[in-house]
Amino acid sequence: MTIQMFEKPLGMRDDFPSIVKRKSKLSKVGIKIMEQFGYEMLQTPSLEYYETIGKISAIADNQLFKLLDNQGQTLVLRPDMTSPIARVAASKLLKEKMPVRLGYYSNVFRAQLREGGRPAEFEQIGVELIGDESLYADAEVILLATEILRGLKVESGRIVIGHTQLLQEVLRGYGLDAALAEKLRAEMVAKNKVAYENMVDTLVDDAEAKSSLKMIMNTTRLEDWQQWIDQTDPVQRSLYEDIRKLKTILDRNGLADFVTYDLSFTSHMTYYTGMVFEIYGEGSGFPLGNGGRYDGLMKQFGLHVGATGFSLRVDRLLEAMPAEQENPEQTLILYNEKNEENAHKEAEKLRTAGTRVTLQFAPAVKAQEEFSSLFSKVIRMDGENNG
Amino acid sequence: MTIQMFEKPLGMRDDFPSIVKRKSKLSKVGIKIMEQFGYEMLQTPSLEYYETIGKISAIADNQLFKLLDNQGQTLVLRPDMTSPIARVAASKLLKEKMPVRLGYYSNVFRAQLREGGRPAEFEQIGVELIGDESLYADAEVILLATEILRGLKVESGRIVIGHTQLLQEVLRGYGLDAALAEKLRAEMVAKNKVAYENMVDTLVDDAEAKSSLKMIMNTTRLEDWQQWIDQTDPVQRSLYEDIRKLKTILDRNGLADFVTYDLSFTSHMTYYTGMVFEIYGEGSGFPLGNGGRYDGLMKQFGLHVGATGFSLRVDRLLEAMPAEQENPEQTLILYNEKNEENAHKEAEKLRTAGTRVTLQFAPAVKAQEEFSSLFSKVIRMDGENNG
Repeated sequence: MTIQMFEKPLGMRDDFPSIVKRKSKLSKVGIKIMEQFGYEMLQTPSLEYYETIGKISAIADNQLFKLLDNQGQTLVLRPDMTSPIARVAASKLLKEKMPVRLGYYSNVFRAQLREGGRPAEFEQIGVELIGDESLYADAEVILLATEILRGLKVESGRIVIGHTQLLQEVLRGYGLDAALAEKLRAEMVAKNKVAYENMVDTLVDDAEAKSSLKMIMNTTRLEDWQQWIDQTDPVQRSLYEDIRKLKTILDRNGLADFVTYDLSFTSHMTYYTGMVFEIYGEGSGFPLGNGGRYDGLMKQFGLHVGATGFSLRVDRLLEAMPAEQENPEQTLILYNEKNEENAHKEAEKLRTAGTRVTLQFAPAVKAQEEFSSLFSKVIRMDGENNG
Repeated sequence: MTIQMFEKPLGMRDDFPSIVKRKSKLSKVGIKIMEQFGYEMLQTPSLEYYETIGKISAIADNQLFKLLDNQGQTLVLRPDMTSPIARVAASKLLKEKMPVRLGYYSNVFRAQLREGGRPAEFEQIGVELIGDESLYADAEVILLATEILRGLKVESGRIVIGHTQLLQEVLRGYGLDAALAEKLRAEMVAKNKVAYENMVDTLVDDAEAKSSLKMIMNTTRLEDWQQWIDQTDPVQRSLYEDIRKLKTILDRNGLADFVTYDLSFTSHMTYYTGMVFEIYGEGSGFPLGNGGRYDGLMKQFGLHVGATGFSLRVDRLLEAMPAEQENPEQTLILYNEKNEENAHKEAEKLRTAGTRVTLQFAPAVKAQEEFSSLFSKVIRMDGENNG
């Protein structure tokens, strides 16, 4: 295969100025809101060790970009930001300041196997709240995520909330062994209702459990969860109580109409241990972002503390944001050698006053009319007498 | 070699919040000035084909991070921004709008062979002005670079200007063949004066040429160049005339005291074809950035147009920028379950008024005193009666 000079690797994109401008605006709005909530921005390196971040990240191995360094170690391009931030937070510098609130706006990498428009490099904006095991921390990150959507004028985002641990307890409560529970969970992750129901039919013996489990993928309201929960089990009761309190906080903060509670909602990201959520925009099947509690990840860095957070995908946010009229004023000064000194003076004067000025030596422009048409105002200083 | 959980690959760094903040400020100031000069920001992907950008980039092969994609093609992490931007500018979308002015704030990658504190990933801020062969374009990028330094309050940057093509013509004028000229040029790049003079002594026969060439590394003023230039040679005369006009423009724009003109100053970057320059800050041996004319690079993308630009290194700019008192106001509200509702209300009120508020469920904090000490103001809503 011969590579043409203009080609880019699979899944790699150039961002033209109009996109860079929108991303820049998005990051400014998002970072400002994070800072309002007390989060500080962190930046980790693009390359990490495969043995640490690569293995922990919960991204499929064949989606990792791997390379060898000069020492023969395998490196990966960071596939997510949660595990690198967990690495930093677990280091001695930060672990004495718990809970720590860290935010990021960063690109991440996922190798693509086929052509098909999926980006292999994309940006995420998100936060991690590390060192707080309470439901209040979970509420905070959901509220912050929705505040960012609001700041970006993304209308009527929907949020689906589940609870990984509670789901596990419920499945265990029905007497399912770990292997079977994991099989059922996999179909829930895939949102494959038919396959799930068939599996329950085939593999669950008890008639009452069968009938009850078949309906679990239909839950949308938190009250619905009660029919699956064993109120005599202190763990289930306490987890349910937490999520009920979480709902109260979200409701009071204006989210009552935007959140559904789905006991069968769970994630392929194996490090989630508690509340999990996904955010959708109006009219798109792809989630804008997701998050949840991942206390298990911190343990891998030797730190027994709670952690919760979310990440939003910048490319999908851009699609969900309202289009904007982007017509910045841009003045062109076309000058010749004779008027060069005056042209520089004029440009400086205008720029000092805040005007964007392109200063262009006229004879260097091949297509002057087309070039001039790109500007909102043209000042000609390329005649014999002006200047 | 076993890798510890906290380790990062050679030359990779975490940017803690205080650094991210300074970088963010730097990029805002820099981008604003670029936009004032009519530049638009572009972002290219982190990964490019080795066959195209990797080979063109003029970065030593053993400094490239290489990896294989799923199709078996060799990819590189972009080692510079000039060649990717040249790729984009040469594409049909932009080549009809020449001259195009493109800016960037991007990370680039250079593999390090040894421990030694050199970063393997660092950010550059810079511009490319493509489609303008005139000396006025060269003047513009130098003025823009110094305007950015001024905007960042980097005091008394020094600029060294040379001219790759004129130097070549001069060496050719002394009757040196290409191989010998290249040898001498290599010593100039290395700024190795002694080795250079020895080489001239050994390899140049003509006594007058010998004496004249030995002094070439001592030029600092443009007028000095005249003793090496053959005024009867139309190419040399015309190139010298251009750089003389360039000097006039720089002088008139306040740079007379900051620029030295060194005919022996040249670059290891082989794609430079005309004016080249390097920028230094006060008190540092490392250049803050460099730039020049690289018409040759555009030809590799099939486009016979002029191109000039510069890049500044963000890490070195940060060192050269004045230190700033960074004490943002950050209010902490510590609340308990009873006061949760009021705490949320108070936080929202303060945030709406522009205050940064960290809202923290008090029982989740292990070391309350240390944690509280991180904030400029603490509001306690975790008692029995307050709220």
